[in-house]
Amino acid sequence: MVVGAGFAGLGAARELLEAGLSVQVLEARPRVGGRTLTRYLPDGTQLDLGGQWIGPTQHRIRELVDHFGISTYPTPAHGDPVVDIGGERLASPPREVDSLLEEIDLLALQITPERPWDAPEARAWDQQTFASWLAGTEYSETVIRYVARVVSGGLLAGAPAEASLLETLFYVASAGGIQPLMGYEGGAQETRIVGGAQSIAEHMADELPPGVLRLAEPVTAVEYDSAGARLTTTTHTYTASRVIVAVPPTLAARIRYDPPLPALSDGALQRTPAGGALKVHAVYPAPFWRDRGLSGMSTSDSGVLTETVDNTPPNSPRAVLTGFVYGDEAVLLRGRSLEERRRIVLERLGELFGDQALSPDDYVEFDWMAEEWTRGCFSGHLVPGSTVTFGPALRTPVEVVHWASTETATEWNGYFDGAVASGRRAAEEVRAALGR
Amino acid sequence: MVVGAGFAGLGAARELLEAGLSVQVLEARPRVGGRTLTRYLPDGTQLDLGGQWIGPTQHRIRELVDHFGISTYPTPAHGDPVVDIGGERLASPPREVDSLLEEIDLLALQITPERPWDAPEARAWDQQTFASWLAGTEYSETVIRYVARVVSGGLLAGAPAEASLLETLFYVASAGGIQPLMGYEGGAQETRIVGGAQSIAEHMADELPPGVLRLAEPVTAVEYDSAGARLTTTTHTYTASRVIVAVPPTLAARIRYDPPLPALSDGALQRTPAGGALKVHAVYPAPFWRDRGLSGMSTSDSGVLTETVDNTPPNSPRAVLTGFVYGDEAVLLRGRSLEERRRIVLERLGELFGDQALSPDDYVEFDWMAEEWTRGCFSGHLVPGSTVTFGPALRTPVEVVHWASTETATEWNGYFDGAVASGRRAAEEVRAALGR
Repeated sequence: MVVGAGFAGLGAARELLEAGLSVQVLEARPRVGGRTLTRYLPDGTQLDLGGQWIGPTQHRIRELVDHFGISTYPTPAHGDPVVDIGGERLASPPREVDSLLEEIDLLALQITPERPWDAPEARAWDQQTFASWLAGTEYSETVIRYVARVVSGGLLAGAPAEASLLETLFYVASAGGIQPLMGYEGGAQETRIVGGAQSIAEHMADELPPGVLRLAEPVTAVEYDSAGARLTTTTHTYTASRVIVAVPPTLAARIRYDPPLPALSDGALQRTPAGGALKVHAVYPAPFWRDRGLSGMSTSDSGVLTETVDNTPPNSPRAVLTGFVYGDEAVLLRGRSLEERRRIVLERLGELFGDQALSPDDYVEFDWMAEEWTRGCFSGHLVPGSTVTFGPALRTPVEVVHWASTETATEWNGYFDGAVASGRRAAEEVRAALGR
Repeated sequence: MVVGAGFAGLGAARELLEAGLSVQVLEARPRVGGRTLTRYLPDGTQLDLGGQWIGPTQHRIRELVDHFGISTYPTPAHGDPVVDIGGERLASPPREVDSLLEEIDLLALQITPERPWDAPEARAWDQQTFASWLAGTEYSETVIRYVARVVSGGLLAGAPAEASLLETLFYVASAGGIQPLMGYEGGAQETRIVGGAQSIAEHMADELPPGVLRLAEPVTAVEYDSAGARLTTTTHTYTASRVIVAVPPTLAARIRYDPPLPALSDGALQRTPAGGALKVHAVYPAPFWRDRGLSGMSTSDSGVLTETVDNTPPNSPRAVLTGFVYGDEAVLLRGRSLEERRRIVLERLGELFGDQALSPDDYVEFDWMAEEWTRGCFSGHLVPGSTVTFGPALRTPVEVVHWASTETATEWNGYFDGAVASGRRAAEEVRAALGR
């Protein structure tokens, strides 16, 4: 029995079915795809409101894309990026930024993603926030602010004090380094999906035998012992020999377990809040920025938008500029009205790409933190001081209950690929336990 | 309608009833008292397994104790305390410890407990863990380790990296300083309750009119709008004009709300995990430590027990030595068997108080983190980087839903007194909203 039809749950179900096991996937929403959601405006303009990219070393998701014959396209980059740093406008980050990122990369090499708590300095790294570590380096305030925003925001979707140095390095290590994480070409933002990223999950769901997937059935309770489990949804009950809970930790904690989860398991779920990113989209008649020689990509050390990108699919009726808001700015925006948020975001787009950005046809935002069945994006991270102590419990099975979700992944943690990997790993645990 | 019959919920109910409002209190457990639990061994020896102390500036709880005519007694202190620091055994902490505590006190003076996010250095203090701040002081490693253990452990029930400097200072400020918090005589551990601390809550419950309190009815769902709410428990449904959710934040997040809570409210609940203390009790035929001139009180910078105390009530058939385990040590102990935990704890008691400590009649522990309807003690704290951003949302009402719990208190946050204060504050909000 699998709880959740995101990439982790669907990945687990595929693996279990391949092993000849009978599977049921229970999903709270009336749709699959978890933190992906592709929406079309009336004229057919496509918006990916959640996760949207895949990269070259994400082999699991690439395999699925190929398997389903899904077409992809490179992230549009018709022109120069804007790097707005220290009041200057550059086409690439200054050398000091690369040098600081290399330092992070070097530290991350000391981490074995399966066991970050075993790193030689794990305890010391877990005790300090990434913000504190940055403040202790010899770089300028400008370089530190920029790196804090693009790493803690752009990668972990939070503020630089919300994760420890250890958790940040673990995240980098799980992706194989900073460059694979941050890059467009050659990196995790290289490739987009024709039809939107959610379509990968939809294909996975379509391939399930009839009756396996039950939508709009939130699981409210899991009764379990060493022999099996009984799951209660809002409409039915099910029995199973094993359960894979494939939802983000903060949602996994909201299911009622009987017996209650052991202290360390529950403690780990409590200590893995979901990230706080806001993704906003401005839709224009045409990609006007390209006429100015700009790619639409930007990174900034100030302003509400840490990152922007040209998010226009090929043959789109209209052009899409997408911005990302993280950390304190995301919290501040959430305290404003939609009208104010729109004004603040568009003013910043205007500063970056010119006055034409001020008047889009459409302004679309979607707050995953307000979504009952997600509660934050991109993904959750163990809070400072918790990776060493509570980290191991995050994926330790409890009797017949196993844990999946990109948060439990040791490769590409936080990405589709990590989600699929976590589902497969949990399915392997189940296969091994059942002797299949 | 009040969810939870701990001190916050019962405090709220009293206030609402006094205002002439009709009230229902729904409690998940078959008992009242939240994080207090008084248990008697077969011979009548009393153990307070949860919260147990009150102090001189905790006026609200003192008023209740006086109102009910409950007797109290001073925490036993027949002899000298042991301060085990840097391998030395002293009768009081070295001057450097007091000096570091005074520094903390001075910083805490800059905090207005109602608005810690407005402190001049709030942002900088929220960005660093208390551990990082300590490491940056000029004190010796020994002094830092000792203070980390007694402040982050003894007060916030966690590791020094689990709370920011800001959250730690807020906690100190909410109690009026380090001395009121840490002291026995003149401090928060001065006074114990005859019959156990849970009896205060039981008296509060007994004074409620018949039918107000419903036990063993966990609230599973709250539907609400601007006009009122409907609550669903495991057995009934109720309607109400206003709701006070008076449970710890991590439990408040596990109720299903319709509509789902706004992003910032849910984000705040996600970012307030419960503390991880373990309280252990060894029961002996007699308080043998007193014969050696020892009070049974100890604080240590090493070993599994950060603190111990003589917990023997007056006229008790047997003597009780109670130990507190925090942070990493508490996590490590949870990974051991009961037998191993017992051995480790008793060995440490033996080191502190002599070989007689090795062979108690009884060894009793109770893990609040394993309790479904608590999930950690003493209380929850906003994680690093969250106080400034998510702090305000922790007690901001959502339509007709109000928030109580000692975690939302601005005076004596984390104590019974703060819990009662939070219940009264939420009740005042309800009164004001209803024009009563």
